Amino acid sequence: MQLIPIMINGLPGNVAKMIVSHVLRDSRFALVPFSLTGPEIQEAAVEVAGTSIQLVRPDVRAARIGDIKKQCPGLISVDYTHPTAVNGNCEFYCAHGLPFVMGTTGGDRDRLDPAVRASSICAVIAPNMAKQVVGFQAMLAHAADTFPGLFAGYTMTVRESHQKGKADTSGTARAVVHSFNRLGVHFSEDQIEMIRDPEVQKREWGIPEEHLGGHGWHTYTLTSPDRTVTFEFKHNINGRDIYADGTLDAVVFLHQKVARGEKGTVFSMIDVLTGGCS
Amino acid sequence: MQLIPIMINGLPGNVAKMIVSHVLRDSRFALVPFSLTGPEIQEAAVEVAGTSIQLVRPDVRAARIGDIKKQCPGLISVDYTHPTAVNGNCEFYCAHGLPFVMGTTGGDRDRLDPAVRASSICAVIAPNMAKQVVGFQAMLAHAADTFPGLFAGYTMTVRESHQKGKADTSGTARAVVHSFNRLGVHFSEDQIEMIRDPEVQKREWGIPEEHLGGHGWHTYTLTSPDRTVTFEFKHNINGRDIYADGTLDAVVFLHQKVARGEKGTVFSMIDVLTGGCS
Repeated sequence: MQLIPIMINGLPGNVAKMIVSHVLRDSRFALVPFSLTGPEIQEAAVEVAGTSIQLVRPDVRAARIGDIKKQCPGLISVDYTHPTAVNGNCEFYCAHGLPFVMGTTGGDRDRLDPAVRASSICAVIAPNMAKQVVGFQAMLAHAADTFPGLFAGYTMTVRESHQKGKADTSGTARAVVHSFNRLGVHFSEDQIEMIRDPEVQKREWGIPEEHLGGHGWHTYTLTSPDRTVTFEFKHNINGRDIYADGTLDAVVFLHQKVARGEKGTVFSMIDVLTGGCS
Repeated sequence: MQLIPIMINGLPGNVAKMIVSHVLRDSRFALVPFSLTGPEIQEAAVEVAGTSIQLVRPDVRAARIGDIKKQCPGLISVDYTHPTAVNGNCEFYCAHGLPFVMGTTGGDRDRLDPAVRASSICAVIAPNMAKQVVGFQAMLAHAADTFPGLFAGYTMTVRESHQKGKADTSGTARAVVHSFNRLGVHFSEDQIEMIRDPEVQKREWGIPEEHLGGHGWHTYTLTSPDRTVTFEFKHNINGRDIYADGTLDAVVFLHQKVARGEKGTVFSMIDVLTGGCS
């Protein structure tokens, strides 16, 4: 099988590093030894699992990208950079014919799709690369479309635990709550219980010590009006490996789309999940 | 609003009695004071919550049904009788123009649909009247259709607890396992853990004492190959009230279909959930 050349941008960031270490263990890919990085980065290169990757700052990337493309024809870019870089990076990929998978959130999202559509490339842009979580959300959204009011009268509790630094409520929890609202449950986003205390996470939730700094645990509990029926849905993620899996599947998906001559299209993770048939 | 006349067959059986007690508290219905019963029943009448209901044995029901229909025009029958009575009852309803909701399982299921289709009535026939459970099953079946292989590589455990007398594996658990198989999980029905020991149910599962004799608790746990991700789905039902709710919603649904002149159609609980638009 032909290896897919893959360039992981956002090094030396932690998520980008984690993706690189997955790429190095994955026989589907050939790692491109360059990474677009931010203007504040001083290092010229970074080493991940014994592999050295050159860092390319914004001031020189336009001048160097031609050589990189020549060296690694057909490369797919993976973007886990900084929210402030979202739109600039997208425009750079579009201008230089670089199909990309973007897991970075933030920026002006409304400008992403038009930029890609006006270009000769295609991209997978998704705020959540965890395939199974995306599938779970889609499953509930479909239920809400098909069986509106199914859980009418039910009461709900939602609890989510994330690492101490995370200030906002889980976006996944909010999306799931929205589906349950359409399924008839009265519940507002501000009723979501956010757990950020590592002691509580360890003691009451049993979250492994090594994942206190990076996890996303979600529990949705529904109780019938007469309290005889309980439904409970949980998705507990330790670390970030699940995002790497989804990202690399998105790269394979995009590589196939590029090979078939697809241009100017933005795909979602739902497209990746359904093989683009949705 | 016009009350819907409703005849609950299968008295003095426990499920039929439970449905009657729900009907008596529900302002949508007028209880028909008759109930078709089995040949072995000796009593002439049964009292539920202060209301006396006459029992009509098979040998006299053909002779008496004309009067009952005259007394309660437009009645809808609810069938929670005995598995051995399934086909005979269905044919009786068809022959006498009695639209029915049937929650009884067993019998020759293949003969039910053709009997109704050849008749002037319509019916809701469903092995499971618990709307939310049916919706959950449908949600997973849809996910399996849409995202085949989504949980590929995941391992699964399935545990179900039911009252001591239940010999067979939960049909709901088996249906859900089938969907997870299509979602990529290797798991066979005989790996489902069946809990039937009241002591374990009370001590380890926390099932309330008063529901040890009648409950259905189900837990499906999925773990990613690298063990960093866990999904868990639970549906825990105490007692049988949820079946009464679904049955009575099915009666209202069927009443509307009859009013619109629908004939010779068998509906499922999915039809009831979607209002017949599926």
